[in-house]
Amino acid sequence: MRQQTFFGPTLRDIPADAEATSHQLMLRAGLMRQTAAGIYTYLPLGTRVMQKIQAIVRDEMNRAGAQELLMPAVQPAELWEESGRFDDYGPELMRLNDRHDRRFVLGPTHEEVITSIIRDGIHSYKRLPMNVYQIQTKYRDERRPRFGLLRGREFIMKDAYSFEPSEEALHKSYEIMFEAYRNIFRRCGLDFRAVKADAGAIGGTGGTHEFMALADIGEDTIAYSDQSDYAANVEIADVAPPATEPEDTPAELDFEKGWTSGEELASKRGLPLSAVIHGHLYYINKAPVLFLTRGDHKISDVKVGNYFDTLQVEEASSAQTEHLFGAAESFIGPVQAPTDVKIIADQAIRPLTNAICGGNQTEAFYLNVDHRRDCEIDAFADLRIVQEGDPSPDGKGNIQFAEGIEVGQVFKLGTKYSEAFGATFLDENGKSKSLQMGCYGIGISRTLAAVVEQCHDESGIIWPKALAPFDLHVLMINQKDEDQSTLAENLYEGLQAEGYDVLLDDRDERAGVKFKDADLYGMPIRITVGKKAGEGIVEVKDRKSGEMTEVQVENLPAYLKDIGF
Amino acid sequence: MRQQTFFGPTLRDIPADAEATSHQLMLRAGLMRQTAAGIYTYLPLGTRVMQKIQAIVRDEMNRAGAQELLMPAVQPAELWEESGRFDDYGPELMRLNDRHDRRFVLGPTHEEVITSIIRDGIHSYKRLPMNVYQIQTKYRDERRPRFGLLRGREFIMKDAYSFEPSEEALHKSYEIMFEAYRNIFRRCGLDFRAVKADAGAIGGTGGTHEFMALADIGEDTIAYSDQSDYAANVEIADVAPPATEPEDTPAELDFEKGWTSGEELASKRGLPLSAVIHGHLYYINKAPVLFLTRGDHKISDVKVGNYFDTLQVEEASSAQTEHLFGAAESFIGPVQAPTDVKIIADQAIRPLTNAICGGNQTEAFYLNVDHRRDCEIDAFADLRIVQEGDPSPDGKGNIQFAEGIEVGQVFKLGTKYSEAFGATFLDENGKSKSLQMGCYGIGISRTLAAVVEQCHDESGIIWPKALAPFDLHVLMINQKDEDQSTLAENLYEGLQAEGYDVLLDDRDERAGVKFKDADLYGMPIRITVGKKAGEGIVEVKDRKSGEMTEVQVENLPAYLKDIGF
Repeated sequence: MRQQTFFGPTLRDIPADAEATSHQLMLRAGLMRQTAAGIYTYLPLGTRVMQKIQAIVRDEMNRAGAQELLMPAVQPAELWEESGRFDDYGPELMRLNDRHDRRFVLGPTHEEVITSIIRDGIHSYKRLPMNVYQIQTKYRDERRPRFGLLRGREFIMKDAYSFEPSEEALHKSYEIMFEAYRNIFRRCGLDFRAVKADAGAIGGTGGTHEFMALADIGEDTIAYSDQSDYAANVEIADVAPPATEPEDTPAELDFEKGWTSGEELASKRGLPLSAVIHGHLYYINKAPVLFLTRGDHKISDVKVGNYFDTLQVEEASSAQTEHLFGAAESFIGPVQAPTDVKIIADQAIRPLTNAICGGNQTEAFYLNVDHRRDCEIDAFADLRIVQEGDPSPDGKGNIQFAEGIEVGQVFKLGTKYSEAFGATFLDENGKSKSLQMGCYGIGISRTLAAVVEQCHDESGIIWPKALAPFDLHVLMINQKDEDQSTLAENLYEGLQAEGYDVLLDDRDERAGVKFKDADLYGMPIRITVGKKAGEGIVEVKDRKSGEMTEVQVENLPAYLKDIGF
Repeated sequence: MRQQTFFGPTLRDIPADAEATSHQLMLRAGLMRQTAAGIYTYLPLGTRVMQKIQAIVRDEMNRAGAQELLMPAVQPAELWEESGRFDDYGPELMRLNDRHDRRFVLGPTHEEVITSIIRDGIHSYKRLPMNVYQIQTKYRDERRPRFGLLRGREFIMKDAYSFEPSEEALHKSYEIMFEAYRNIFRRCGLDFRAVKADAGAIGGTGGTHEFMALADIGEDTIAYSDQSDYAANVEIADVAPPATEPEDTPAELDFEKGWTSGEELASKRGLPLSAVIHGHLYYINKAPVLFLTRGDHKISDVKVGNYFDTLQVEEASSAQTEHLFGAAESFIGPVQAPTDVKIIADQAIRPLTNAICGGNQTEAFYLNVDHRRDCEIDAFADLRIVQEGDPSPDGKGNIQFAEGIEVGQVFKLGTKYSEAFGATFLDENGKSKSLQMGCYGIGISRTLAAVVEQCHDESGIIWPKALAPFDLHVLMINQKDEDQSTLAENLYEGLQAEGYDVLLDDRDERAGVKFKDADLYGMPIRITVGKKAGEGIVEVKDRKSGEMTEVQVENLPAYLKDIGF
């Protein structure tokens, strides 16, 4: 492609309202333009990268045995009422009426459409398992679109749906998809982690993993081991159980008043924060439950919900706490707690002896608490948020934190949608069963942005080879110099004939402008045809390392192969 | 792909509400399913064909120098107000509001979006001409969606927009696109005609052509020469001028009353219909104009408007005709017509002598009319609709009619949108000018349906080689027979290794079902592995000719190459 008439307009200044680096660079390098808040036009450079990502996704999905189809963006509201999500989805679901006033939605996802199609198309175990996918435009009316493609309102996704005869089959398909996802993100050149995640409102009792691209702009925190593959969303990351049972001999239970907090009391007594037991009162499915954590730990609402396998988790109000315990939350504890309140303690409480906890009166605390002697704890569980430095739950290394961008997620849905739509099949014994389902998403446009977040320097983008819009960028420094223009044109034709995608800067611009734009565009290899053109010498620059090498043109093809191109 | 778990559900019966053959076959062969009226899901077979069409379109567009980009489907209403089309477009424009009650449309076309982007990205003649295209989902809220993909509400289009420094440059780009379109439809295996068409409301004073796939279901009539490339939409097809000037000596002008029509009078006098002159009163830009055609011809409203280069064409009401001529339209004519009425005659009037025309009184007619002697005709022009059997306007052969499906259209838009959006550039002399624009559309999903309309028989679809979802369909007749299953599996692996896309029918179904489904699916070549598998013999069937040949498996690759596969 000749740059003279190539539509890749660059910007020198950082656009004022672009916070994320990827957003800034994608505007500056002419990959895209904003058409409305959270809605973008992909210009030729952006389109080329997107298509390379899509080709990798298609390749891996087909290899994994998935079949491509294409569902519509406009979906009848009735389908969403059948699944119950028309109301549940809230204002993020874009809605419209047609000329006959029939109601439609712009699909944020396609469980409803595909389940209704499969219900009518699949009736026997002989056709299972079946995995279908599409690459398609999705809509989510974000309250505050931001960060460019990272949180847009119209975006491109690959979504796959698998239909299975059994939970074992679902597990197998899930593993296959998991592996395909690892391949996809590896081939895209991303530094990523597959992390255990929470299913949230999408439902499904099976597992779910998020694929997170590591990046400072990330909206999620990942807990990962510094010595193994272990990684999880920090909200649900497992905490390794404590190594020991209580050993110290407990002193006699004591009771004191006049302290504003357990921390204050501990500090006065020279005890660490870890000697304090915090009480947290929740209503789980409308019944009160007292959860206990150590003073130096934070409770995870997601773990609390998961312990009872429910989304109905609410913290008690001040009035409710006051009513049940006769004191504010800072002063409640498991000793002499109301008998109708269940008590679940974090596993880190188990080794504690001589602990401090609330006295269930204002400004009152117990000291020398031994939970075996002084409390009625119903169960111990993993309730707290993991901390940096904690041992990794797989026993290898310690936990570190990193910020990440979610670029993909795999879910075991189970029968949530197949039951809502009556999607059944006859098994080997002629018995009717609900289909087991999995769903598997990749944010294509998000992946593009995540790559830019990871691959850039202060001068611009540094494309990984597999995604670069062009393989080679040939710069003709002075197009009025006959040696230069002849050599550059010959290279342009010759390198294309060898199968390279080549961008030729044949513009009537100063050399400085050409160099700046080339760095901003970020093709992996820049070939500059300048003053030594007469001697048949060009300069080859590796965008990533910055290394420049003078090469005789006749050696250029061999040189490019040598450096892996 | 193994058919056992391939999602291509077939239907034995013709779906009740599918009128068009393509609609019936695409449902029956499992290419698509309806998700809502005029809104379809493309199943794997349909998706594969669609992608093959898209690959051909991309290839030809890139070859023609166009650059791919991707614009959003959701567009801000403000852009459509800037062009004036927000109101003009009527109820076919789908509209929606976001959560902040900002107004959007679902784009039926993208002139507004692209012109606003180019306005900000192109400022100099040096970057011109530039041609950008996308393959994208479009929306048109048809009052009555029908014929499957032929008149849908969500559909896939390729739309290109060229930006030019001059009308000459636009003309050149138009020619390049025209040629690319011919290549595309030829490669898709379509029997089509490029026909001159009317620009209608999309505007632009330059030319426009429609690409019409010939098919009985067609909603447009094409006039084409039986001996040349000439073809045009019947509404605007040129009529060859009559060969001769008047020759007969006119008799004396006569006047008679008591006839209900010119035809009645002509019949009584033994004169042909072609001796009668009909008057048609129109208001053009609010001024009355009397148009004349021969009694055996029909007037074309499009030609009437084009003659005056206006869309403001209205037939006079009875009251207006009565007021101006003192008689109803059946009795009006050019002799003694009101002097403030312009008279434009169809060119076929020119050779007439001794004609009959209205007497401008009720039931009155003139006879022996010679327009040179008796009328004040302001101009002669081509005003009538062409008829079958007319000589072709290019002098080669005669006009025939055919029905056609519009699969593409190319337009010279001129400056209509660039002026509305202030999209200007500086020319070689530093002078600011409005960009000249062209736009070029192809209905991708329509092309798919048009191919099915043309390529089928009573048993199913007959895919042209370039678009077939799979190249080869291997049928394993009895999967319990070891010879058959081994041979079929070997063929399946071996043929894929040779680069063929292969569908293997490995289902546990009767042979009759497999043959019926294979004919319905319509892959170009069917390879049946049956009773002679033990001898290493398979049966190769050409879906189009129906020809069957027994082939030794070791000769199969050579045989396939021989027959062009």
